[in-house]
Amino acid sequence: MRRSNLSLVLRRFRDEGPRTRARVADETGLNKATVSSLVAELVERGLLREGQIERLGAVGRPGQVIELDGRRVCGIGIEVNVDYMTALIVDLAGRVVADERVPLDVPALGAEAVLDATADLVARAVAAAEAAGSSPAGVTVAVPALVDVATGTLRFAPNFGWRDMPMASAVAERLGGPPYPIRVDNDANLSALAEHVAGEGAGVNNLVYLTGEVGVGAGVISDGRLLRGSAGLSGEVGHMPLGAGTQRCGCGRRGCWETTVGLAALLRMAAGPKDPVRDPARDVEDRLTELRRRAEEGHERTLAALRQIGTDLGTGASVLVNLFDPELIMLGGYFAMLGDFFLEDMIDSLRARVVDPDTTRCKVVLSTLGFSAAARGGAHVALESVLADPTTVPAVANAPSRSPASV
Amino acid sequence: MRRSNLSLVLRRFRDEGPRTRARVADETGLNKATVSSLVAELVERGLLREGQIERLGAVGRPGQVIELDGRRVCGIGIEVNVDYMTALIVDLAGRVVADERVPLDVPALGAEAVLDATADLVARAVAAAEAAGSSPAGVTVAVPALVDVATGTLRFAPNFGWRDMPMASAVAERLGGPPYPIRVDNDANLSALAEHVAGEGAGVNNLVYLTGEVGVGAGVISDGRLLRGSAGLSGEVGHMPLGAGTQRCGCGRRGCWETTVGLAALLRMAAGPKDPVRDPARDVEDRLTELRRRAEEGHERTLAALRQIGTDLGTGASVLVNLFDPELIMLGGYFAMLGDFFLEDMIDSLRARVVDPDTTRCKVVLSTLGFSAAARGGAHVALESVLADPTTVPAVANAPSRSPASV
Repeated sequence: MRRSNLSLVLRRFRDEGPRTRARVADETGLNKATVSSLVAELVERGLLREGQIERLGAVGRPGQVIELDGRRVCGIGIEVNVDYMTALIVDLAGRVVADERVPLDVPALGAEAVLDATADLVARAVAAAEAAGSSPAGVTVAVPALVDVATGTLRFAPNFGWRDMPMASAVAERLGGPPYPIRVDNDANLSALAEHVAGEGAGVNNLVYLTGEVGVGAGVISDGRLLRGSAGLSGEVGHMPLGAGTQRCGCGRRGCWETTVGLAALLRMAAGPKDPVRDPARDVEDRLTELRRRAEEGHERTLAALRQIGTDLGTGASVLVNLFDPELIMLGGYFAMLGDFFLEDMIDSLRARVVDPDTTRCKVVLSTLGFSAAARGGAHVALESVLADPTTVPAVANAPSRSPASV
Repeated sequence: MRRSNLSLVLRRFRDEGPRTRARVADETGLNKATVSSLVAELVERGLLREGQIERLGAVGRPGQVIELDGRRVCGIGIEVNVDYMTALIVDLAGRVVADERVPLDVPALGAEAVLDATADLVARAVAAAEAAGSSPAGVTVAVPALVDVATGTLRFAPNFGWRDMPMASAVAERLGGPPYPIRVDNDANLSALAEHVAGEGAGVNNLVYLTGEVGVGAGVISDGRLLRGSAGLSGEVGHMPLGAGTQRCGCGRRGCWETTVGLAALLRMAAGPKDPVRDPARDVEDRLTELRRRAEEGHERTLAALRQIGTDLGTGASVLVNLFDPELIMLGGYFAMLGDFFLEDMIDSLRARVVDPDTTRCKVVLSTLGFSAAARGGAHVALESVLADPTTVPAVANAPSRSPASV
């Protein structure tokens, strides 16, 4: 009971901003003595702090304003994708403390080296958080895979070539059993969560987040909740049998949607095999920036490739609109970086296949969280555990304020 | 507060069976005086009745057992499909009081005649319910259409050729403004609800109900809740672009999945144009029984058609497994009647396309509710309104017990 009241009060300061104890009592229906005791405990744990005195009009006693102290704890989101890794540290107030992205060639490196690199990145992020005076509430690793979230086991990652990898425990072991929990989750699910809480999709209760990487995945928010399915395996849109079947998919089949709209398809259509944009050792964002430059200059092969992506993207998106009836389709990953060159073609082909284009209200927008969406969702999941149970944060003297650092 | 306690107590008797007031007090945490007063009101409204005296062991006062009186109110489910109509009356105890199915050729009749026929069927069902001593709590009309449930408006029914039809008010008007509410909802959604509460899928929190009629629709239960999407337009699986494109769909496009697995596709593959199984004036169940007889006798064209249906059904079902990760796919409509002849082919092609056939736990089963599933879901929705608010049923002397009647 006290735990859930602590959670209620902490969320109020996080979501609604600074206020007096009296106002929180009014808003929550809790009595003033209870609110004072809850606030005292949250101050002790370094999650709230006293702010300015507020004069309530001309008469009456001034009220002490309390505010969120977001610096004390942070969530760390890590994304491990086919050709890059990202780390993002977000504090309880939602501020990005630090971030980092490094190129990575997962299929070439093999599992052991990738797990080593993941653990190294986690260690660097934790060190950066601590240098900024913040303790990690948890680490969430996003992967383009079917994941058993309860056990942190990656079940199947077609584009990694991995199966049944106990990723959470493998990373924890390399870190010598750290005090914070390590979770593993699907990248598109975490991106959808990030958009739902902090991005363009904030407040939209029905949205589909489509992520364009080497693979194509979806995270679906329906009626305000992330759809997970019976075993957390939902949202595997990349393997819908919509493609022409000319390319073999990472899953071993032909005809999968991602063989026509994934990053590999774009690069194959837009550039020759020796073109530097097809070099997996280069940072993916640099390669996409180069493609973007070519598109802006009117390079015909690049533009034709993007138009084709748009058309095929719309065909598959029509299935998602017909099945989920979202208000919003959000495009992430490389779709977000280059979408302005294919959005029109995508919407044309989407409208041509949606059961009732006149009735659906679905809009298509580009994610502004970009390649950090999955990591941000991961950090959010870690912070949620603190908001759900503030007693997980030990009581200490307030940590001194320090300035942000890079990882 | 009292209303929600009435609901709580009534549901307990419906779901858990006869029990004493004292036991209900124990189970709900309400005090005995409150339970007595709630039970008295529910008896007054004819929803509960006194049963036998129960002796609680050797000592102590005997307790009066109270039980559900299911006869007083009923829900009426009506299904209007392309080539038949169904009415089903279900009482509060879940017993089917009466049912009826009539052939109907919606595209040939036109909207006015179909609305007339719908209103006539509702009137006959209401009369049958009243003859059995039961008052209708509401009527729900199931249609193979995109429906705006809030206003009872059919937005788009490709296989009816209807658009923006205010069906609830049109039927209510024909009935002279009846005292019970008339709702309209999608047939597959209602079928999924029926399976989730009373069929093979009872207690399964992630299931996809696939209905095979002229069109093919899906109702999806995810995490125990019916998915509706942002405007109630979800589950339109029939128009996924998976087909060969040789046939034009009711929606005007080519390549829609239902052109390869809908009833019309089966009939076209299994029989020549003059064959009586292709006569829409004959009852659909009779025609399917004839096809079943032929399949049992080893009729090659029929068997080949069914195998092809199975293969194409599995391909589309793989999309649903990849997207929703259900525990169960339930096949309804004609799929349920003939599924044993194509289930193996369906599962083969499903496994070939599911992203990770070794991880998914999804089973495929045939609905045992058959063609009455949608109507049963409709009756359930009507009864839910009584369970949610028992004060909607006026207080009366208990209606005398009468025997069931046919509509």
